[in-house]
Parts: sequence; C-alpha cells; structure tokens
Amino acid sequence: MPVDPAATIEITAFSWVPPFAQGYVRDLRPRWACEEMGLAYRERLISASKRPEWYYAEQPWGQVPSLRDGDIAMFESGATLIHLGEKGGLLPADGQARATALSWLLATFASLEPLLLQLPEVELFARNEEWARLRGPSLTKAIGKRLDRLATALGDKEWLGTTFSIADIAMVTSLRNMGDNPLLSERPGLAAYVARGTARPAFQRALDAQLAAFAANEPQPAEGA
Amino acid sequence: MPVDPAATIEITAFSWVPPFAQGYVRDLRPRWACEEMGLAYRERLISASKRPEWYYAEQPWGQVPSLRDGDIAMFESGATLIHLGEKGGLLPADGQARATALSWLLATFASLEPLLLQLPEVELFARNEEWARLRGPSLTKAIGKRLDRLATALGDKEWLGTTFSIADIAMVTSLRNMGDNPLLSERPGLAAYVARGTARPAFQRALDAQLAAFAANEPQPAEGA
Repeated sequence: MPVDPAATIEITAFSWVPPFAQGYVRDLRPRWACEEMGLAYRERLISASKRPEWYYAEQPWGQVPSLRDGDIAMFESGATLIHLGEKGGLLPADGQARATALSWLLATFASLEPLLLQLPEVELFARNEEWARLRGPSLTKAIGKRLDRLATALGDKEWLGTTFSIADIAMVTSLRNMGDNPLLSERPGLAAYVARGTARPAFQRALDAQLAAFAANEPQPAEGA
Repeated sequence: MPVDPAATIEITAFSWVPPFAQGYVRDLRPRWACEEMGLAYRERLISASKRPEWYYAEQPWGQVPSLRDGDIAMFESGATLIHLGEKGGLLPADGQARATALSWLLATFASLEPLLLQLPEVELFARNEEWARLRGPSLTKAIGKRLDRLATALGDKEWLGTTFSIADIAMVTSLRNMGDNPLLSERPGLAAYVARGTARPAFQRALDAQLAAFAANEPQPAEGA
C-alpha cells in the first residue's frame, strides 16, 4: 500500500473511532483513489473525540478527510477526489467522459447522500425519538425512488461511465454506507455494483490502511478500571 | 443577457413553476455562471408538472438544470458550474485558488445543503406532520452550528477564495434559498455575503432570464373556468 511518511500527499484522518464507524470514515475515499492510481500518501491522524481547535481553520466542520499536496490544502472528500483524479487519471481530462464523471460525482453528493445521510439519523441515532419513527416511511420512499432511477441509469454497465472513475469511488462508498439495508439489498443491480467496487484490490488496501490506523491507536483501558 | 438560440451551450430549465419557486430553480446557477463569464447559452424548457419521460435518460432524477455544450451532455448544477468555470475562468486553473474553490463548492453540496434542504421540508411542506414539528429544534441547532463555522471561515473576506469563483455561485444561491429565515438574517456576516453576491449585475441578469421564461409560459386559465 502506498502509505509513505515521505509522500507529498497528506491525508488527515481520525486516529480512532468506535467500532461501528471503523471502515466507514470518509478518508476512505482519497485513500482508495490513491491506491487505484499508485499515488503515495502520508497520514496525519487527529483525535475524533477531542478535535483540536486549530483543525477547524483547515476544515470548517472539523471533519475528515482534509488533504495536502505539497503546499496546497483542501477539504471535502469529493474535492479531494477531483484533485487526485486530475493528478492520477481517474478523472478523464476532457470530453463526455469527464462530463459524465463530474455529473455522477456531484449527483452522489448533492442528490443521493442528502437523503442517505438521514437514514442512520432516523434508524439509529434518533431511533428513540418520535420524529424519527414518524419520518421513516416518507424517507424510505424517497430514497427508493431515487435508487430505482440510479439502477436504471447504471443498467448493465460495470461502472457509471465507460471506465471506472472517481464517480464510482464516491457512489460505491455512499451506497456501501447503507450496509445490509433492504433498500439496497433488494436492488440486485446496485448491490452487485457495490460488490464489484469493493472487490477491487485498491479498495481493500485502502480499507486495510484505515483499519490499521485504528488498530494502532486503540484506546487502552485506564489503569484500575 | 447572453441567452442566444444559436449558442453552443444549452441549459435545460423548467418552462414554468409556481410563484414560490420562481427565481429559486437551480438552473439559476449555470445561468449566473454564463452571465459572469459572458458565455452565450440557449434555453431548452421542459414542463415541471409533466416531466417528459425521455428526460430521465438525460437527468436521472428528472431535475433541472442539465447542460449541453456541443456534443457533451451533463447534469447536476454543481457539475455544470465546474464545466463552465473551467471554460470561462471562474474556476482557477491550478494551485491553492483551484483547491479552495473546489473545496467550498463541494462543501456547499455535501456539508451544507443536505441540512438546508431539510428546512423547507420541516418548516413548509411537512409542517402539519408531527415528525416535522418534533425534528425542527435539532435541525435548527445543527444548521446554526455549521453556519457559525462558515461565518468564521469567511471572516471579513469578500468571497470564499481570494477572488469570486464558482464556489460563491454555489454558496450564495444555497444560502439565498433560506430567504428571511433568522438562521441566516441573525448572522450579519453571512447575510451581507449573500447580499454582495446577489447585487452582482450578472446575478440579476440570470434571475431576470429565469423569470422571463416563466412569464412567457404562464399557464392560462382554462376557458370557462
């Protein structure tokens, strides 16, 4: 894997997160892109539970990833995908291929994730709140309609464009966050698309790298506890 | 204004929408970008209430805008901003300026709009549903925290980067959708930023062009009604 402390590219990630979030933090996206394109990167790990106040000057929401490449700094996983894709080739340079990749990249962030992100909110974090119980059905219906349209657009193609691109990194990781939710598993075309993406060796290496950082920084029980 | 039936760039927009949505449909973004950069564009207007089924093959959610530029087709307003910005200069070509513009463009779509889009849902469309009443307070708090961070990042700068860019087109239109919501009006720095953006002559021309299409396609009362 291309984690290399001397690399020019730096990805900021969390040093540790609780088990349910491990393997799902968004630095997975630029890690995956780097692995696909053979771009070396170094890690900068910060605390998720006590986010350093200085970090908000680099990333306004205190989230990860942020990315440095030499003296350039940027944030938002989607933006890092564009930057890395332009550097290493997973964002086609021009023509319809570029337009398709950018369209689906933005579609992931602007039209699909805003709905998908409400799922864990409704089904997990706020599941004991009355609003979440009541909101469930209309949200599920809205997501289902959109996923049907996505499945139609994908059809029997392997990837969203004619070749694998940063749009697939964005979309596969987004859909994968749904886990075994029937909204995904009951759409075999989309489930197979996610399986195809996550079977790529570069995805597996990126996942391993994120998990390795968490394993190395596992909190130890306090003495006497 | 650069609306020109012979233009190479084509923006698909709705022929008419109800008054509350007029001036807020997302084709405003590529229109604004074209106006800023003096890029001529032609309009293709489709029905919002009876969306033609063939359109879903071009735009998976049936939304507007979609964009054509010669034989290239794309969708998602954020993607059209990248394409147009690369063509006309409102997306810097490289370096920190490009990284900053891409970061804030994606931040608008991935980190701010997913919350902001829930506001009209909770406060307007579903306001008579119990879940919406109960969801309001936690949503308002989450948006407030994020807007505070945005205000800090903007500081006393005129725009998100050192010069006006496609990121400002995305962010200003997003915040403007909040109307007179106190979440915005009680943050004077952000309210002034929106006022600065919408005072630009190119914004006004884009808005006029969207409204002109609606005025020309105003539904007529059925005879005898």
